[in-house]
Amino acid sequence: MKLTEVVITPIAMKDPPLRNIQGVHQPYALRSILQVHTDEGLTGLGETYGDLAILTALRGVGPRLAGLDPFDLNGLERIIRETLGSAAGLATHGLVGEASDEKTLATVLSAFEVACWDLQGKALGRPVVELLGGKVRDRVPYSGYLFFKPATHTPDPGYPADAWGEAMDAEGIVAQARRMVGSHGFKSLKLKGGVLPPQDEADVILALRDAFPDHPLRLDPNAGWTVASSVAVGKKLEGVLEYLEDPTAGIEGMAEVARQVSMPLATNMCVTAFSHLPPAVRVDAVQVVLSDHHFWGGLRRSRELAAICRTWGIGLSMHSNSHLGISLAAMTHLAGATPELTYDCDTHYPYLVEDVVQAGVLEFIDGAVAVPDGPGLGVELDLDSLGRLAEQYEKCGFDTRDDITPMLAVQPGWDPVTPRW
Amino acid sequence: MKLTEVVITPIAMKDPPLRNIQGVHQPYALRSILQVHTDEGLTGLGETYGDLAILTALRGVGPRLAGLDPFDLNGLERIIRETLGSAAGLATHGLVGEASDEKTLATVLSAFEVACWDLQGKALGRPVVELLGGKVRDRVPYSGYLFFKPATHTPDPGYPADAWGEAMDAEGIVAQARRMVGSHGFKSLKLKGGVLPPQDEADVILALRDAFPDHPLRLDPNAGWTVASSVAVGKKLEGVLEYLEDPTAGIEGMAEVARQVSMPLATNMCVTAFSHLPPAVRVDAVQVVLSDHHFWGGLRRSRELAAICRTWGIGLSMHSNSHLGISLAAMTHLAGATPELTYDCDTHYPYLVEDVVQAGVLEFIDGAVAVPDGPGLGVELDLDSLGRLAEQYEKCGFDTRDDITPMLAVQPGWDPVTPRW
Ligand SMILES: [Mg+2]
Ligand SMILES: [Mg+2]
Repeated sequence: MKLTEVVITPIAMKDPPLRNIQGVHQPYALRSILQVHTDEGLTGLGETYGDLAILTALRGVGPRLAGLDPFDLNGLERIIRETLGSAAGLATHGLVGEASDEKTLATVLSAFEVACWDLQGKALGRPVVELLGGKVRDRVPYSGYLFFKPATHTPDPGYPADAWGEAMDAEGIVAQARRMVGSHGFKSLKLKGGVLPPQDEADVILALRDAFPDHPLRLDPNAGWTVASSVAVGKKLEGVLEYLEDPTAGIEGMAEVARQVSMPLATNMCVTAFSHLPPAVRVDAVQVVLSDHHFWGGLRRSRELAAICRTWGIGLSMHSNSHLGISLAAMTHLAGATPELTYDCDTHYPYLVEDVVQAGVLEFIDGAVAVPDGPGLGVELDLDSLGRLAEQYEKCGFDTRDDITPMLAVQPGWDPVTPRW
Repeated sequence: MKLTEVVITPIAMKDPPLRNIQGVHQPYALRSILQVHTDEGLTGLGETYGDLAILTALRGVGPRLAGLDPFDLNGLERIIRETLGSAAGLATHGLVGEASDEKTLATVLSAFEVACWDLQGKALGRPVVELLGGKVRDRVPYSGYLFFKPATHTPDPGYPADAWGEAMDAEGIVAQARRMVGSHGFKSLKLKGGVLPPQDEADVILALRDAFPDHPLRLDPNAGWTVASSVAVGKKLEGVLEYLEDPTAGIEGMAEVARQVSMPLATNMCVTAFSHLPPAVRVDAVQVVLSDHHFWGGLRRSRELAAICRTWGIGLSMHSNSHLGISLAAMTHLAGATPELTYDCDTHYPYLVEDVVQAGVLEFIDGAVAVPDGPGLGVELDLDSLGRLAEQYEKCGFDTRDDITPMLAVQPGWDPVTPRW
């Protein structure tokens, strides 16, 4: 079996105005959808960031893959490494740490690698989870992801309001959590912080604790705080948080916080590539790594990360960006085959109102998604939806994620500096 | 596809009187040969140590595997973990470090795991190397493994003399090397040390350097030396050795030597399980790890070790014990798919005069073995040979490797204490 043609479609999907340290989500989140065709008539699917820089890199690689065996993941990496050359060091966005050549390679590799796993599974009539060593769990637990948010995007009053309403204080977040737990059954909750002052966010966590006494809780201000603020929140939330995620920036800063608080510190910002692991381990900067196959280099590299976490006694969780069903399927297969996963995975999926995959496979029941049992990733493209979201991309008016500009539109003079508190 | 029956055959193969720190190889080396049958008529092959303790553990696991999907490597590990329970902590032999529960599990797992890979490949019509991510090299380079040895086994004059003759000094070793390079084309050479006093072994290395100016050279006394002796040899052989392997015992001892010599230190004794990696990395005890799928838990775990070595900038080589063609095939597929492998692999294979696999696939040309391109491991059992070597096992008079007893027979009162010098 050989790859023939690669079709890469940028799409834009409606996204609520979710707040974070950098500002607010734009009205659309961008993704690149990959269809990797073969000479045997099979098509493998991939999904990754839609930012123009990544899209351009993907498009540079696509034509070079003709003739590749989808089992030849080492060959895939070699071709991508050769192709990228000068295109390396592309940023995605600041919420997943610094850009680097290593991360660009891993990001581009991942998109095609997942499509190759999908093809392998389809060729063998086996779900990807079986090719990754077999199910260690039938259902993958996700955590409910809570966001501060206004009711609507501004300044676009014509944009339809989302179903979630405003949540800018403890009451709003608890209501959001109730709704999300009610609809999806999540057994743990994560609050995206970096929006209110740290002590206020700690109070929101305490309100969640009151409302959900048995749900493990996480707080993630995306490195928006100083070491001192991080330690203060850490002490206030002792015994309350399952983990505190990226309270402050950098391996040294995280290590300093870790020495002073009792809960594990988690990261998807200061350890986001293999080269970050030795320095982080040396100073015990983080006790949990949030893997993300999109920027760790795919499913195989994510399994390597899991082995490293197992070996060094580091917890393993999973990171999410706004994503569609192809990514959710890949995350679920990966988590389904990863015994080292010790925490519920993150997902933005509940905020989604449109998808490019056919409905019916990916359902949250009791907070978990069953590992799809169809061949490959077990999801199929809905070509009508793909076309509609591709049109939406053409019309949305931007080609790169930017949370700062829409924030400035709401709040002129807003300063995205970090640490903010 | 489901596993049905597992047949485990202990065999004994003729082995020359190769010397090492523990004594001398017995006239026969023991191996366990696995045939893992499936409901689809395919048979997967595995090979590991033949020592009674391991054989017994393998036999305990075998019947529990009926019904397992050979793709379900996580399920395989789960069953083995449950089965071993109290049988853990089995020693193989002291030349590969301390026994532990972790290593017993990994050893038993590996034997079946390789057979599962063989089955996967046979089912898909693909060589194992393709299932491991694809070839990064068509031919796997091995190093010529030199041993001090008497001409014959003692005290069994009826045992046929081997083809290698005596090699108990520099002249003998250089002659052995010439012969081995001549017949197999090896491009690097390793001397098994721990037999002569350290300075004398250093002189043998210098003689090899004179005779083979371009061959990378290694010396491995199996932790037979004190730190002081190790440093002295390290300084004497500065610029001469590619690496110095296990000069002294333990992570702390190796770290102490590493601080004082300029060449990389390699190990298959102080880092032989994942739990050894964090302490070894912490003190930079070793700069090269010799992987060995037989005790690291199989091909998948060996790839994880490779990822760790890549991440921490540790070199990767490959260890060998006396082995047959099934193991050589597995080693070659693994190395063929492992970009992190930075050194020629070890092998005892040239000393072999009998095998259980059909001839013709595994040939050393210019010191390298082409990755077999048949399905699975690409080797087939020779059932006649298997039967003959199984008979040899029944007659050989021992069931566990023991290099000390035959040494005592030659040299009464010989003391296997280490460090010896
Ligand atoms: Mg985060
Ligand atoms: Mg050794």
